[in-house]
Amino acid sequence: MEYSKLKLNEEKVFKDPVHRYVHVKDQVIWDLIGTKEFQRLRRIRQLGTTYLTFHGAEHSRLNHSLGVYEIVRRIVDDVFQGRPEWSQGERLLSLCAALLHDLGHGPFSHSFEKVFHLDHEHFTQEIILGDTEVNQVLSKVGSDFPKHVAEVIAKTYANKQVVSLISSQIDADRMDYLQRDAYFTGVSYGHFDMERILRVMRPREDQVVIKSSGMHAVEDYIMSRYQMYWQVYFHPVTRSAEVILTKILHRAKELHEQSYSFKYDPLHFYSLFEGNVLLADYLKLDEAVIMFYFQTWEEEDDPVLSDLCRRFMNRNLFKYAEFDPAKEYKKHSELEGLFKKAGIDPEYYLVVDSSSDLPYDFYRPGEEEERLPIHLQMPNNELRELSRQSDIVDAISGKRRTDHKLYYPADFLYDESSKRNIKRQIRSILELD
Amino acid sequence: MEYSKLKLNEEKVFKDPVHRYVHVKDQVIWDLIGTKEFQRLRRIRQLGTTYLTFHGAEHSRLNHSLGVYEIVRRIVDDVFQGRPEWSQGERLLSLCAALLHDLGHGPFSHSFEKVFHLDHEHFTQEIILGDTEVNQVLSKVGSDFPKHVAEVIAKTYANKQVVSLISSQIDADRMDYLQRDAYFTGVSYGHFDMERILRVMRPREDQVVIKSSGMHAVEDYIMSRYQMYWQVYFHPVTRSAEVILTKILHRAKELHEQSYSFKYDPLHFYSLFEGNVLLADYLKLDEAVIMFYFQTWEEEDDPVLSDLCRRFMNRNLFKYAEFDPAKEYKKHSELEGLFKKAGIDPEYYLVVDSSSDLPYDFYRPGEEEERLPIHLQMPNNELRELSRQSDIVDAISGKRRTDHKLYYPADFLYDESSKRNIKRQIRSILELD
Amino acid sequence: MEYSKLKLNEEKVFKDPVHRYVHVKDQVIWDLIGTKEFQRLRRIRQLGTTYLTFHGAEHSRLNHSLGVYEIVRRIVDDVFQGRPEWSQGERLLSLCAALLHDLGHGPFSHSFEKVFHLDHEHFTQEIILGDTEVNQVLSKVGSDFPKHVAEVIAKTYANKQVVSLISSQIDADRMDYLQRDAYFTGVSYGHFDMERILRVMRPREDQVVIKSSGMHAVEDYIMSRYQMYWQVYFHPVTRSAEVILTKILHRAKELHEQSYSFKYDPLHFYSLFEGNVLLADYLKLDEAVIMFYFQTWEEEDDPVLSDLCRRFMNRNLFKYAEFDPAKEYKKHSELEGLFKKAGIDPEYYLVVDSSSDLPYDFYRPGEEEERLPIHLQMPNNELRELSRQSDIVDAISGKRRTDHKLYYPADFLYDESSKRNIKRQIRSILELD
Amino acid sequence: MEYSKLKLNEEKVFKDPVHRYVHVKDQVIWDLIGTKEFQRLRRIRQLGTTYLTFHGAEHSRLNHSLGVYEIVRRIVDDVFQGRPEWSQGERLLSLCAALLHDLGHGPFSHSFEKVFHLDHEHFTQEIILGDTEVNQVLSKVGSDFPKHVAEVIAKTYANKQVVSLISSQIDADRMDYLQRDAYFTGVSYGHFDMERILRVMRPREDQVVIKSSGMHAVEDYIMSRYQMYWQVYFHPVTRSAEVILTKILHRAKELHEQSYSFKYDPLHFYSLFEGNVLLADYLKLDEAVIMFYFQTWEEEDDPVLSDLCRRFMNRNLFKYAEFDPAKEYKKHSELEGLFKKAGIDPEYYLVVDSSSDLPYDFYRPGEEEERLPIHLQMPNNELRELSRQSDIVDAISGKRRTDHKLYYPADFLYDESSKRNIKRQIRSILELD
Repeated sequence: MEYSKLKLNEEKVFKDPVHRYVHVKDQVIWDLIGTKEFQRLRRIRQLGTTYLTFHGAEHSRLNHSLGVYEIVRRIVDDVFQGRPEWSQGERLLSLCAALLHDLGHGPFSHSFEKVFHLDHEHFTQEIILGDTEVNQVLSKVGSDFPKHVAEVIAKTYANKQVVSLISSQIDADRMDYLQRDAYFTGVSYGHFDMERILRVMRPREDQVVIKSSGMHAVEDYIMSRYQMYWQVYFHPVTRSAEVILTKILHRAKELHEQSYSFKYDPLHFYSLFEGNVLLADYLKLDEAVIMFYFQTWEEEDDPVLSDLCRRFMNRNLFKYAEFDPAKEYKKHSELEGLFKKAGIDPEYYLVVDSSSDLPYDFYRPGEEEERLPIHLQMPNNELRELSRQSDIVDAISGKRRTDHKLYYPADFLYDESSKRNIKRQIRSILELD
Repeated sequence: MEYSKLKLNEEKVFKDPVHRYVHVKDQVIWDLIGTKEFQRLRRIRQLGTTYLTFHGAEHSRLNHSLGVYEIVRRIVDDVFQGRPEWSQGERLLSLCAALLHDLGHGPFSHSFEKVFHLDHEHFTQEIILGDTEVNQVLSKVGSDFPKHVAEVIAKTYANKQVVSLISSQIDADRMDYLQRDAYFTGVSYGHFDMERILRVMRPREDQVVIKSSGMHAVEDYIMSRYQMYWQVYFHPVTRSAEVILTKILHRAKELHEQSYSFKYDPLHFYSLFEGNVLLADYLKLDEAVIMFYFQTWEEEDDPVLSDLCRRFMNRNLFKYAEFDPAKEYKKHSELEGLFKKAGIDPEYYLVVDSSSDLPYDFYRPGEEEERLPIHLQMPNNELRELSRQSDIVDAISGKRRTDHKLYYPADFLYDESSKRNIKRQIRSILELD
Repeated sequence: MEYSKLKLNEEKVFKDPVHRYVHVKDQVIWDLIGTKEFQRLRRIRQLGTTYLTFHGAEHSRLNHSLGVYEIVRRIVDDVFQGRPEWSQGERLLSLCAALLHDLGHGPFSHSFEKVFHLDHEHFTQEIILGDTEVNQVLSKVGSDFPKHVAEVIAKTYANKQVVSLISSQIDADRMDYLQRDAYFTGVSYGHFDMERILRVMRPREDQVVIKSSGMHAVEDYIMSRYQMYWQVYFHPVTRSAEVILTKILHRAKELHEQSYSFKYDPLHFYSLFEGNVLLADYLKLDEAVIMFYFQTWEEEDDPVLSDLCRRFMNRNLFKYAEFDPAKEYKKHSELEGLFKKAGIDPEYYLVVDSSSDLPYDFYRPGEEEERLPIHLQMPNNELRELSRQSDIVDAISGKRRTDHKLYYPADFLYDESSKRNIKRQIRSILELD
Repeated sequence: MEYSKLKLNEEKVFKDPVHRYVHVKDQVIWDLIGTKEFQRLRRIRQLGTTYLTFHGAEHSRLNHSLGVYEIVRRIVDDVFQGRPEWSQGERLLSLCAALLHDLGHGPFSHSFEKVFHLDHEHFTQEIILGDTEVNQVLSKVGSDFPKHVAEVIAKTYANKQVVSLISSQIDADRMDYLQRDAYFTGVSYGHFDMERILRVMRPREDQVVIKSSGMHAVEDYIMSRYQMYWQVYFHPVTRSAEVILTKILHRAKELHEQSYSFKYDPLHFYSLFEGNVLLADYLKLDEAVIMFYFQTWEEEDDPVLSDLCRRFMNRNLFKYAEFDPAKEYKKHSELEGLFKKAGIDPEYYLVVDSSSDLPYDFYRPGEEEERLPIHLQMPNNELRELSRQSDIVDAISGKRRTDHKLYYPADFLYDESSKRNIKRQIRSILELD
């Protein structure tokens, strides 16, 4: 039988805390799950450093990838199947793209990408198209199949229905991570009636839309998203860990550039330091590897690197203060001066971090990061953009919210064994005492 | 103010998916949580290799330790406080012992302890009594305090009430892990009415007992325990991963003993190989470190070590068959012979694994691993052993259940590029075709 | 189009707290739900007097009937469809029988049936076969269809697969009520992995069986059942309300037989009193009607009737003591004598109530109330009776547990305005002081 | 001991599906729960006719009243106790007011109040201050105590902290009903982190405020409230049942005024019809009584009354169309004319119903129904009105949303046995065909 049509003798299920069960019937999906590139996602946490704030958030990207697959499976098998607007021929492609959409993520993606100028989407493409077990499986379906999977994930695939299942303002990716991250952190946000949303999803020419009777479930989803961003993803303690992590990477890179001699040879980091990361190098990076080096670096002679690594490993994080860059730039440069005088390098120990989010946006063609709006299908089959129908969504639509914070090591400032007066001055400016 | 009585300015809470919130008011507890030895528990999974079967089971021992602390806190602050049989002076000791009871666990404890003859309880004692941040915090409470905490955990402390809070057939440890492991795996077992059980716990002279009105909640707890053991903890796929892990460690040790030259110097393993693990060595071991080595060992020249590491990392596990050691020892030795002929070392690739559990036991003094029974406090204040009152518990009490399985690499047996006939013979004996 | 095949233009859903949604696609089912006989089930509580113990247990039999329908729908549409052992022609019959299986229940069935010698199964048959809206709908499917629905419910239908979906030791009826009653009472028992059980149900020649891989989920279900019986259904406070309710009915009947003149004409009760209940009379009985009369009877001149009604309406229930009929019959007759002397009629105020349950039973042909055992389908397709495979089920199988209690009005016994010494004597025997 | 300080020998608990357990330690509370006026709330549904839309919504007002009590108990005992701004002397008063705040509700309050010009708040006052069992219990606490309880519920009590616990935009009443109604209907809205909100509630001079760190939990609560109103409370099917109920009451009153002779004497309705409802009359009204009459009225000769009652009892409700009163008044009067011609009385069968809600409001002194805003307590102890701090709340604050619908009996319009052309004309205007 054709490989793309091959079914397992017996359906396999994975017990999943969020969707109860993940069901696998297709041989292709089963084989993809068994590849080493997919299994690698077990060693990369879904939420990076968030586990230092919410101790339950230790779940991996494999966990989430299975969830996105399961949601798309339910949509195509239970909701879309048999509808004339949907071509069942796109089923397997949709499932594969869902399963593999995060394949290129590396350890602590956010910080690594920033410091080493990486792009996980680029590596997703490479893994799907390159010399990998994943590519071998996909190629057995058809010679063009890997390319199509890559295109869906890159949002360039011709059939936009398939693209919007995985990448839109209400896609399987977001629906899974909001619920999953809520489940593992234990917060009470992140709940919405996904079963209802799935039931009212409808394929249209070039997108997936929502029957208007399901508008309120979508409103609830948008609000969940808003709350998860500010309560979980942008939590100031998580950002503190992120700041430290970024600074560790910066310092290590800087030391390498200064030909510092590491006690323990950082083999896995060389290609990162030199900006020349091949696929094979990249696939060896995971969070176990990074944590291994951070632990060894606790014993390095460089005081900044070892201090920052100890902070990260032992969760001795930076404290923070509200900061308004527009109004307080003078205060910031004053603090920089004082930090230097106190012998605390502000480059590593006085950090402004900003988070910003747009909870929902209507279409703004041409703008950076344009996002497809959510369309409601009215009883007369017309489409109407969500914020024109929902008071709640209209109220928050297009409103970007930004938060700035200033991070610093409070323990250093209270260490009065040296520079006591300068540190007191700093504490006074930061209103700590 | 006395350190032991010091309260935080403001209560701190950790969001916990199982108990909603973990509440910390005591400075001592807050300081213990901040120690590097406690933070290390983030890097050790609560359920070892179970995440390879249940992908949600990625939670750490820190996660569980906070949970056990929270349960004991609720018992002593909400249930026991004010009861004449309970001395409030034991409160802080109980909380500290609860928080720290698993401190000595290493990576994949089960396998490491077996192969390298370690004992996590021994290291718990060392961490509490040795030169550690934990010891520094505890010593600030009183010079004898570390010793008392260690005694409670070792079950030698004079006040058996305190001991039984943390170590008995219905203690805070078990109540937390059953619920937590159920939550993270997503299985529907593991639920019981803990709030009810806590409400009916009563301190008695030398133990904690249960008011008889709560008997049914305890029955439910015992059944949960039974189901969790067989459905989760002894899951045959988990045991397959455990078998491979154990064999990796054996092989690495054997290679070291044979003066094999590792490509990548296994610094962290030397003390393990030589049976001379000092506390400082031990504290550097965590699952990130182990996974780091396993990844590097995938590229070792030794075919057994590299094969087993690849299997473990990429979840290419052994298959299994039911096996009755009493009746099938002949079949086993026949298989051993055939494996050797086929060039597959049975020492590493044909493994019998046995699991065994006693769901509840009444008291059997003098026997190995004697376990204190659960006592019900009847309306007339008499105590009665649980299985004498509960039909359900009586039915399963003292009945040990054991399961044996034979593990082997099915893929090797289907590789017909060599020794085809012998492999067919093996498959025939294993009834694979 | 044939009525039996008619589908709704758009699937209708009912929001259900237990199964999330109840899905209706068939016109027949939609029409049945709209009949007055089905809607009458809204006015009959699923758990009779249990709401007086668990205040959440106010849910109706309509609630449960929709749930049983939904479970059967999932089995036949999602699990059985396409299996050769299952004939899809039985689909609609199965759904109708599931929906209607409790149609003949009257108000507070248990007590009414006992006192007035009614049988709800008899009325279910009458409603399905008689001159009712339900019969009209069913007859439109086919002239034999009402008879077949009635046969399935009466367990006499030829195809035992269909019968066992609704009536066996693991049927949709039980699976719904255990979960539903747990949900509405709020107890933590009653949870089991129904999704798993549904997935492993298999149609066989003359019954529905369970794949052996699902054995543990079934064990969990059996334990839930056991706990729900003793924690909820046989709760002593519920039985107290039941005792009073039964005595109200007895008293009213007795007064009628004595030609007592009721202030408010009990029109709805005449046919009950005279043992001549026609279908039309029966269909007018619901719990609103009964509660209406009980409220008016609070003002009757007969002191026993008015007292019992006040107790029931205002939840001023009887207290209870453990009672062993085998050993304490003497004590009982002594108490009877003393109650009479105290002017408290023991016929109404000193009541022994017994509850008894058999959690699981293997087949005992010929015995009263024979129950079909649960069969596991082993990997080799053989069937094996559950208790032969499961240690836990074997342990409780066939073990009947019985509980006896003695109910009395404690407030009467403490009213020392008369017969003080006799009442003290009674209290002393009952060990009340 | 003083009655107000009397504690039960042993704490009593009620199993509650929403709050797990309701805890009662005070003799006063226990005695109040046992009064007949409180028990009467079992016979009045929390959500009136909503059970006809959401079949799970069969829970009673007693259910909710216990929940509100439990929330206030947790606030005063776990959060406020020991805070200098809170006077513990108000504890019992707060608990009693919480428990009794809905005591005056009658059957299907909304419709009955509208048709018969009743006011449940008036009856709450009468029950607390009049000749009732509740008054007897409260008077034992102190002669002024009933008056104080009544004042708290009437919002006239001097200490506004106590008032705002029970009546404000974030009070125990709302927090309970949102969660409880969500639980029993099964909708996924209505969830918010109440535990968090309780932990951040703070007593201030004249109100209860929320620490600003809890703002997001409050936002979530406001959104839950918004969704519950539009998804559950104003559900168009529920409003259809409400319309019919109201029309039944109108018709019965009208018939009484026309000296119609009822077959079955509507004793319980006379005082309602005559606008002269004494407390004793009122206390006899409950939903069982009303349902009893509606059932008997199904057999009345008046075709309107019997038709409407059959519709209500058998859930044969009116259909609805969107309606804009500002623009469509002509269409409405045209329809009225046609209904009359078709022999369908528009007074009973063509009904406009409007629902309107203000999700959150800041203070608008002097306006009708002024509502106290929610205040956040900032880190510097200043108070800030919620909508000034929260973008989300600001976006919806003060925005009234109104929905109008036109209700009519579709089945009548499709009955072509008479006036076929007129009915077709009506259907055409309503766009039914």
